[in-house]
Amino acid sequence: MKLIVKTGICILLMVLFLWGHTANPLETKLNDDSEAMIKAMEWQEQHPIFALAPTDWTNGVYYKGLSHASVVTKDQRYLAALKTMGYRNEWTPLHRTHHADDISISYSYLYVSTTRDKLVDLQPTKDWLDKHLIEPNEWNSNKGKGIAKTLWWWCDALFMAPPVIAYYSKLTGEKEYLDVMHKYYMETYDLLFDQEEKLFARDLRYVWKGASDDIKEANGEKVFWSRGNGWVIGGLALILEHMPKDYEHRAFYEELLVTMAVRLKEIQHEDGLWRTSLLSPESYNHGEVSGSGLFTFAIAWGINNGLLDRNEFEPVVTKAWEALRSCQNEEGMVGWVQNIGDSPKPASEDSWQNYGTGAFLLAGSEMLVLKESN
Amino acid sequence: MKLIVKTGICILLMVLFLWGHTANPLETKLNDDSEAMIKAMEWQEQHPIFALAPTDWTNGVYYKGLSHASVVTKDQRYLAALKTMGYRNEWTPLHRTHHADDISISYSYLYVSTTRDKLVDLQPTKDWLDKHLIEPNEWNSNKGKGIAKTLWWWCDALFMAPPVIAYYSKLTGEKEYLDVMHKYYMETYDLLFDQEEKLFARDLRYVWKGASDDIKEANGEKVFWSRGNGWVIGGLALILEHMPKDYEHRAFYEELLVTMAVRLKEIQHEDGLWRTSLLSPESYNHGEVSGSGLFTFAIAWGINNGLLDRNEFEPVVTKAWEALRSCQNEEGMVGWVQNIGDSPKPASEDSWQNYGTGAFLLAGSEMLVLKESN
Amino acid sequence: MKLIVKTGICILLMVLFLWGHTANPLETKLNDDSEAMIKAMEWQEQHPIFALAPTDWTNGVYYKGLSHASVVTKDQRYLAALKTMGYRNEWTPLHRTHHADDISISYSYLYVSTTRDKLVDLQPTKDWLDKHLIEPNEWNSNKGKGIAKTLWWWCDALFMAPPVIAYYSKLTGEKEYLDVMHKYYMETYDLLFDQEEKLFARDLRYVWKGASDDIKEANGEKVFWSRGNGWVIGGLALILEHMPKDYEHRAFYEELLVTMAVRLKEIQHEDGLWRTSLLSPESYNHGEVSGSGLFTFAIAWGINNGLLDRNEFEPVVTKAWEALRSCQNEEGMVGWVQNIGDSPKPASEDSWQNYGTGAFLLAGSEMLVLKESN
Repeated sequence: MKLIVKTGICILLMVLFLWGHTANPLETKLNDDSEAMIKAMEWQEQHPIFALAPTDWTNGVYYKGLSHASVVTKDQRYLAALKTMGYRNEWTPLHRTHHADDISISYSYLYVSTTRDKLVDLQPTKDWLDKHLIEPNEWNSNKGKGIAKTLWWWCDALFMAPPVIAYYSKLTGEKEYLDVMHKYYMETYDLLFDQEEKLFARDLRYVWKGASDDIKEANGEKVFWSRGNGWVIGGLALILEHMPKDYEHRAFYEELLVTMAVRLKEIQHEDGLWRTSLLSPESYNHGEVSGSGLFTFAIAWGINNGLLDRNEFEPVVTKAWEALRSCQNEEGMVGWVQNIGDSPKPASEDSWQNYGTGAFLLAGSEMLVLKESN
Repeated sequence: MKLIVKTGICILLMVLFLWGHTANPLETKLNDDSEAMIKAMEWQEQHPIFALAPTDWTNGVYYKGLSHASVVTKDQRYLAALKTMGYRNEWTPLHRTHHADDISISYSYLYVSTTRDKLVDLQPTKDWLDKHLIEPNEWNSNKGKGIAKTLWWWCDALFMAPPVIAYYSKLTGEKEYLDVMHKYYMETYDLLFDQEEKLFARDLRYVWKGASDDIKEANGEKVFWSRGNGWVIGGLALILEHMPKDYEHRAFYEELLVTMAVRLKEIQHEDGLWRTSLLSPESYNHGEVSGSGLFTFAIAWGINNGLLDRNEFEPVVTKAWEALRSCQNEEGMVGWVQNIGDSPKPASEDSWQNYGTGAFLLAGSEMLVLKESN
Repeated sequence: MKLIVKTGICILLMVLFLWGHTANPLETKLNDDSEAMIKAMEWQEQHPIFALAPTDWTNGVYYKGLSHASVVTKDQRYLAALKTMGYRNEWTPLHRTHHADDISISYSYLYVSTTRDKLVDLQPTKDWLDKHLIEPNEWNSNKGKGIAKTLWWWCDALFMAPPVIAYYSKLTGEKEYLDVMHKYYMETYDLLFDQEEKLFARDLRYVWKGASDDIKEANGEKVFWSRGNGWVIGGLALILEHMPKDYEHRAFYEELLVTMAVRLKEIQHEDGLWRTSLLSPESYNHGEVSGSGLFTFAIAWGINNGLLDRNEFEPVVTKAWEALRSCQNEEGMVGWVQNIGDSPKPASEDSWQNYGTGAFLLAGSEMLVLKESN
């Protein structure tokens, strides 16, 4: 009897033990959202990357992610990295003052400036914004007709510049910037928003003119790029984060976020992640992180800020966030990010980019807020 | 019988195995002092942080730690990091030539200059020191009366500038710097050293004037800040490291180190670490690393250099170092560091700062020397 | 019976389990060549080191390794690191335009320039090369007599400058650079190549003049430095990589690579790695990575490019690469690298240098090509 008991205990221990052991591969994945986010940041900091310069849009997106993670988590590792980056870049945006991409990085400078007096030099940001928006230039008198004459002629621009402008307006109290932002935002909206599909064309090439050579997916659908729409709805959340509650045009932005969220909910893949071609998922039938991360961020932000019904949308982002987490490897690298581009293309387990990590951090930050409010 | 034996072996193996398994969390801690120090440095290098600039006092302290670790261990990973930092900063101190904090970083430049000819530009350090000490300025004719007129009016300054001055004087052979250092050191000593408690007030605010509004802890004691006193005694060890054995005022510095060490021994907490408020440990009743690390460094240095009795003081630093080691997590991060401040405040497991890592490296270096001499 | 079976299963499981557990230390070594290379790069990037500057020859070698690994593997982690480095260094070589060492880094700039238009500024590289080779200087009219008058008077130079020149000539289509390179290459060859031993003396000090004070090893042999010969044969592979197939002097370089490879095969140590003194292995009887890595690279390149017989030489590099892999620790650090020097000296498990990592990456890259073609 004693022997049987002992043997039973032995087997029980073995089972427990083997269960623990075979579970090891799972355990190597990071267990905690906050830790997963920190690991993503640490990995990215150890693998700096740029397309044009350390202040280009790719880093702009990434450091927007760090800024938001810093605000939400208060973990000083984010702020430390942001300060190091800003100092090295002398708090300058990239040089092309007509190109929305090049001001994206200033979002992080604006954030760092709120953490300590006299540390950040915001003059280069102001100079850039003034040349882009205020001083006479070839877009100031523009009526929004055609690519050549629209300041923000591609939907990505709505993530790159407007959140910076809204933030700058908030910190300086100068409403003029917000008003000019709204003018240009509406031009882009009129140009690229598809009222039927409730999604944005990436640029005029993808807006159907009813001509025989309108660009179509193989299945006959219009081309709606996942990341392109991520730029728009992610940008909306960041704009609304800084726009005064009583701003006269605020409702437009809130409604646009809700409209897009409703549409995105309909076309979410059952595995939680969106495909790079939103209406032709079969083109590249795997989840993609940069678009899905931005969607998750924006929808979670919408729930957290009372724009979206929690019961209806929490399952969307919970599923998406779990799937996003599974795209991160044990070292912290966030994979399945579509490379730099301007239309739907595939990704892979090993395709990483700083802006993918940025989208991951934005999503994770709002998921932390959402979970904490449970 | 065979069955029983087999089962017995099985259980024995299980026990051994489970013992190994549950021991895992302990094993993940670093086993070796040198390895713990390297990990601390590697983690910190991957998480650069500054308050004002990469050459500010926080980095000054950290790179003092690296310099000392490099001298003691000869591990070229320290020197590699020091050279990279110095090169990026163009071997410049921070710009405020009246502020002792801003020359702290030059200690590391002086050290690197000893490792290779013509690599380090010491001119910016010389220029800074000359403006601070030699050229006519508003402190040169000062009699040490009051905060406004004392060059080093806060005790932290005694760690920031004097070790740099002593080192510079040694390398150049110019005794004048040491003499001026001594003059200013005595002014600060006269201002802030409490002859009764054998500890330093952080600044004049904490020196009792016998007035009803003298600042007191809840328990009625004077406020003696752990890190503030760490700056002083840690600075003493670094000064003595470079001061000529026959310097006329050397005895003063040696005696002050011994006096403070004796007092610190009395008030060490039984867990090995000092509290942020030395005479009111109950205010924040947990060990703090930056102060305790500096104490451990200075006392171990005192033993290693024949100023302190080994039998009496080795148990103090052995206990302290073991406790300091337990404040480092598996990744190398040294926690339990009080944030930037000027008086006792709490720390936490997750509160890290580069100067905490610096104190850890200083302590570890002298503990290696101590253990090697056993 | 059931009991016996259960106990048997229990023991079986235990054995399997313990087997897995004791195998752990082995598992911590990196299993995959590509992963080993990435880890080597990641560790090195986290431990930047230089002798004179971040653009010195040590980094030049390292980033040659990254460039070649990037070409072969297409893993964007290499290119990301290269771009970051080049941007921080403003795409400049080091300043001494008469010293071959100082142009070594430009190899990586040339490579990065092929990956994106308008990203890299090649003007500083062109300016340097023009001063070195084209504009009138004290070597232009030189006949290659003696150290003082030979531009490349030490064999290391043949790795530092010629591959850059060949690459620059290829990218610009300007043959003149190649012709001047060949002129100077022949001068060095005539000066330092030992026709009997088929190896290069490091510099004139080691060329026997038949005098009684000719420098000898303890065993009476000439001094042939492993890394010095690694510079030559490794440089040959990189030159040939970029030299036009129909270049009039190409055969000379091909034949020299083959000649040296044959000789190196003869004197490979049975453990796979060469000793720092090639003909006096007993001087420091352990494998050394920088020399062996360069040999492995060049011989594998020779096989992959049809210059060396696969059956004959694949065993040489397979054995060498396995041994090189064993010199890397679990963190990625490549040890057993002889320190900076100009003659045979020992190495140790902990002696690492960026150029050792560079040699490791060069070797690994060509081994990947070799294995893929199996």
